[in-house]
This record gives sequence, C-alpha cells and structure tokens, in this order.
Amino acid sequence: MSIKKLLVLPGDGIGPEVMREVARVAAWLSRRRDITFDISEDLVGGASLAEYGVPIREEVIQKAREADAVLFGSVGDPKWAHVGFDKRPEVAILKLRQELGLFANLRPAKVFDALADASTLKPEIVRGLDIMIVRETVGGIYFGEPRGIETLRDGERRGINTEVYTTREIERVARVAFDLARKRQNSVCSVEKCNVMESGLLWKEVVTDLHAREYADVTLSHMLADNCAMQLVRNPRQFDVIVTGNLFGDILSDLASMLTGSLGMLPSATLGAVHSDGRRPALYEPIHGSAPDIAGRGIANPIAQILSFGMLLRYSFGMQTEADMIESAVSAVLATGLRTADIMSEGMARVGTDVMGEAIVREL
Amino acid sequence: MSIKKLLVLPGDGIGPEVMREVARVAAWLSRRRDITFDISEDLVGGASLAEYGVPIREEVIQKAREADAVLFGSVGDPKWAHVGFDKRPEVAILKLRQELGLFANLRPAKVFDALADASTLKPEIVRGLDIMIVRETVGGIYFGEPRGIETLRDGERRGINTEVYTTREIERVARVAFDLARKRQNSVCSVEKCNVMESGLLWKEVVTDLHAREYADVTLSHMLADNCAMQLVRNPRQFDVIVTGNLFGDILSDLASMLTGSLGMLPSATLGAVHSDGRRPALYEPIHGSAPDIAGRGIANPIAQILSFGMLLRYSFGMQTEADMIESAVSAVLATGLRTADIMSEGMARVGTDVMGEAIVREL
Ligand SMILES: CC(C)[C@H](C(=O)O)[C@@H](O)C(=O)O
Ligand SMILES: CC(C)[C@H](C(=O)O)[C@@H](O)C(=O)O
Repeated sequence: MSIKKLLVLPGDGIGPEVMREVARVAAWLSRRRDITFDISEDLVGGASLAEYGVPIREEVIQKAREADAVLFGSVGDPKWAHVGFDKRPEVAILKLRQELGLFANLRPAKVFDALADASTLKPEIVRGLDIMIVRETVGGIYFGEPRGIETLRDGERRGINTEVYTTREIERVARVAFDLARKRQNSVCSVEKCNVMESGLLWKEVVTDLHAREYADVTLSHMLADNCAMQLVRNPRQFDVIVTGNLFGDILSDLASMLTGSLGMLPSATLGAVHSDGRRPALYEPIHGSAPDIAGRGIANPIAQILSFGMLLRYSFGMQTEADMIESAVSAVLATGLRTADIMSEGMARVGTDVMGEAIVREL
Repeated sequence: MSIKKLLVLPGDGIGPEVMREVARVAAWLSRRRDITFDISEDLVGGASLAEYGVPIREEVIQKAREADAVLFGSVGDPKWAHVGFDKRPEVAILKLRQELGLFANLRPAKVFDALADASTLKPEIVRGLDIMIVRETVGGIYFGEPRGIETLRDGERRGINTEVYTTREIERVARVAFDLARKRQNSVCSVEKCNVMESGLLWKEVVTDLHAREYADVTLSHMLADNCAMQLVRNPRQFDVIVTGNLFGDILSDLASMLTGSLGMLPSATLGAVHSDGRRPALYEPIHGSAPDIAGRGIANPIAQILSFGMLLRYSFGMQTEADMIESAVSAVLATGLRTADIMSEGMARVGTDVMGEAIVREL
C-alpha cells in the first residue's frame, strides 16, 4: 500500500469548487485501488492575501517542496488588482515555479471528439488536434534582472525587463520536449524570434546542437514566434510537440488551447529536475484561470482540474492505468451528452459542477 | 499639379513581382489624376546583400529620409540564413524603422466579404471582422540594450535581450491608437503583460493616464497578451483598435491577419512623428513576407502591395478619394470571381499576379 503526499492549493475564484470534484475522484481511487493520498490543503493567491496579507507563505512553499506532488487550482482576483506588483495573487504560482525549479510546463491542446464543434475554427481544421506545448517556466523575461521602473532626470520613467536564457536552461527544457516527442509523433518544433533577439539565436543553436548530438531520430523544425501564431491558426495539426521560452510559451499555449474550443477541459503539468534521491518536483494545474465572473455559482467545468489530477497520477506516480481510467471516464461522460455551461451545445444536457464530477466518478 | 517623391524598395522573393502591379496602378493615377510620382527604386534585404554585401546601404536610408513616403516590399531569403546576426536581410526593415523613427505600425485585419469563407475560423465568427492593430515599432525588446550572447566562466553561454519602454514612447503610440479609434468604433484595447513585467505595468499606467487626460471619450480596456491571443480566436469582433508593444504586436498582428484567411490581402503602414516642417516619415508594406517558395512563378497575390500603396495615398498624401478608389477596385475584382492561388476557392477563376493587377487597374 503506497502513501502519496499531495499538497492541494485551490486558490481563487472557481479553484475551490472544481477542486472539490477532484476530491471525489481521489476518494474513489483510495477506496478501489491500492493507494492512499495524504492530502494537505492550503491557501494561495487572493485567498492567502485575505488571510495572511501575502500571496503565498514561505511555509506553503516548504510544504510544496516536501510533497510528492502539488495540485494547484488557479489564482487571480480583480479585488487584488491594486495591491502592488510584489503582492499580486500571481506571485503564488510564479514563486512556486521558481522555488521548486519547475522549469518545464507541459500544456496539451487536444480536441475531444465529442467537442470538435466547440471550436471557433472549422471542424475540419481542428478535428483530432493533439499538440503538446513545452514551455520553459523559470527563466526568460519573467525572472531576468535588471527589472523595474526607474525615474529619469526629467520626470520621465522607464520600465525595464530582461530576457535571459543560458545554454543549460535551454538544453534541459529541450530535452523534455524531445523525450516527449519520442512517445508521440516524434516531431519537435522549436520556437523563438532569432531574427530580432540574440537570446532566440542562442535558443535555436542550442536546440539544434542537442538534437544533432542526442536526438537525431526526432524530426526537428524551427519557427519564428510570429509565424507560429499564424500557423497555429492556419493549420494547427502540423504540430506535434512545440518547445519555446516562457513568454512565447505563455501566449502560444493559450492560443493553442483556445483552438480546441474547450479551455475548461485542458490540464497542465509543470515539472522540475529529477533530484538525486529520485524525486521530481511537479505541479499540476488547469489551463483556465480563476474565472471570478462565474465563481460560487456551481457552474464551472471541473474537467480540467480532474484531468490535471490525472496527469499527476501519470507523471508523478507512474499510475498509467489510473490516469487512463480518468481520461476514459471523461470521454464516456461527454459521450452521454452531459455538458457544463462552457461547453454546452444544442441537444446536450446542461449540468453543474457537482453533477459533472459525480458522473465522472460513476464512469470510473 | 503635385509631385510626390516615392522610394520603392521591392526587396526579396515575391517583392519585385507584386511591386510591378503597383507600378501599373501608379501609372494609371498619374495619367488620370492630377499627380506625378517621382519614383526612385533601390535594393534592400537579400537583394542588397547580393549586390553590396549589406542588407541596406546608408545611402538608401538617406533616400528614405528625403522621400515623401517609402513603399516597401518584403525582405528575407533562406539563402542568407547563415549570414550572421548583423547582416541578415531583416536588418533592412529594422533599420528603416529606427532611423526614420517609424514608431507606429498600423496593421488592419479585415475580412473581405467575398472571402469570409477563406478563414480557418467559422464564417459566423469572422464575418465583418475589422480590427486595427497599432504596434510600437522602434522600442521594446527589439532594440533595448544590453543585448547579445556572452560566454560565462565554465564555457556556458547566455543570450540577453532587454525590453525597455519609456513614458514618452508609450504615450506617443497610444495617442496614434486613440486618434484612430475616434475615426472608427471609438474603442481601444491596450495589451501588455503587467502581471509579470514592470515594463507592462508602466505601459498600462501611461495609457490609463493619457486616456483620462485627453481621450476620456474613447472606450479603453486593458488585456494581458496571453488572454488577447485567446480572445482573438474566441471572439475577434470584440476588438476595434488594439495598441501594444513591439514584440506582442509582432505576434498578435500576425495572428489577427491569419484570422482573416487572406494574408495576401493585407497592407500596413508605419508612421513616424510629424516633423516641424509638417512632413511625416512613413513606410508602407504588405503584411505577408517574401514567400521564397513561390517567388518568380507569377502566382503571388499583388493585392496587399496594392492596398499598401492605397494606404500610402491615404495617410501620406491625404488622397482619400484615390485610396477609396483602389479599395473599391479590389472589392469589385474579387466580386467578379478572380482569385490568385492563395485565396482560390471552388467556382472561382484562378489567375496570376499580372492578370490580377490588370483587372484592378481596369476597375479603377
Ligand atoms: C498567472 C500568470 C502569472 C501565468 C503566466 O503568465 O505564466 C499564467 O498566465 C500561466 O500561463 O500560467
Ligand atoms: C522581418 C521581421 C524583423 C519583422 C518583425 O519582427 O518586426 C516582421 O516579422 C514584421 O512583423 O514586420
């Protein structure tokens, strides 16, 4: 009987609601399968600001370090819009990524058969779409120094941020992408802006070298970030794995998710390096945000959070069977016609968060 | 009779081919209307590299300064991919923007009625789409210092670029956006990434202040760049004018153009500040690139280049009537069913570059 330490951080908005549905799935697994989750829960984001005056406590980061995996909800609340740059709810996720060294964000953009028509793109363009974006998440312009706002002599001001990427940072995230590609369609597209940025030039060179040295069996292509945004709209199925930096990844992965027409369905994983004791820090979160506009109304789609838990089982605990079971249960429920408001379409049955969660557990 | 000095820079790939069709339109205008174009032509990009070993000569920049307007084709050629960062063809356009102070790139993303079905998006999502993206083009991470690749002690390397925006740079481009909005749907969406970048924080603050001081009659909203990419796919018609920095603008404007499904149709203008003598430096170019794969085959779509010339007449020479004539002629030709390969669809008549150009002149 294995015991797994899980830190659950529901965060703001719909976070706590959708997390409750994960609890059902976890409880079911504990009952039926040989596994016990030692779950501890804590506050982050606006919820933590309200209680402790900071978006995340040192103590929570320490707990995250000690956990076998972190399941994250979402942070962000308009109430805290004017709280100052260092105290904004988003700091919670940014700090977790950096303090735990979670450098590789895996974001699948997948079209579920039952929902091919939910996209704003024509069904013949997106049917069967299955892209995996690997985004670097502890480097680049998000964290580079110098940064800040300075006042110049004449009262004018200057905002500064620095994009920095080192050989080592590029190589380790590219490795994750190549390894994933080998289990998929064996093709990686590396995205930068090497025609205007030297950091992009280095990015391209390092990926090219690593490929030649260790991954020559994988098909590698290179694309400029602006072109990639276009190609994702023109013909998204040309992509298998995309690997890119923090800022481009932020934009392109959100774009790719929206192509599927069902943002409320998409999970993500963010992985760190494997430590000497074999443990690998990892955080799982839905791609959607805290959706304050629908929070507390019991209508949020819990599927992305449940599938994030599925990714957690797959990547952190090696529980392929259980992860597959969850994915199949989600597909089965969709096939019966149940829909939350965000994916509702004609002829389907509209249900709330809890009915959707229950239905998924029933299909397990 | 007015004489206008025009510098024509066809550049690489399909640039020279589509520029020939503009020459027809200009010739027609000279014959029929009270205007003479004093046209001088020169090499840029790969074409200039081949002839002079540099992507653009100082002399050409000087000519551009003295011209009433610059009509640019496109630069970029895989042949010059390994020529080194300072000599790449793209330097031609980057230098022109910076040396002439062309800080505001106006990029319309417009769906032509006759081509609503050319988009990969569903027609009901894009029909009537008409967005104007105003992109800052002489600042931000494209030009900020320090930049470069440095070697660290242990042989590791580091690529660095710096995003910098000053109050003054933000204000002047926001002004262009607000002024344009007043002539359109009176709404501006300002896009940055203020939740992770201080330069974005300053951007948002400066735009907000300027709005309160001078443009309170215009509707202003703010959006994060990742969300903007999503919203452009989810519901692009929510936007009127979008104003953003150099890097986000590069990606989002390409994305927006691709939504229309007819990249080969879209022109752009890049404007500088009005000088004390009343002159305003300006450069016009199609949104599409040099398309080396189809260059020299006579099948490129000349419409974006012709419409860029139309924008030139409108913005640099105040020739609204003539600009309208060109736009109407393009619509009329599309209505007759003529199509170049890139916008071809069933039941239409496929024609080459020159037949399309001639047809447009005939409709003038
Ligand atoms: C919340 C925010 C800081 C974050 C980011 O920009 O990385 C989010 O957009 C994401 O993609 O996870
Ligand atoms: C050619 C290149 C340097 C340029 C840019 O990135 O600005 C192009 O993509 C554009 O959008 O005009």
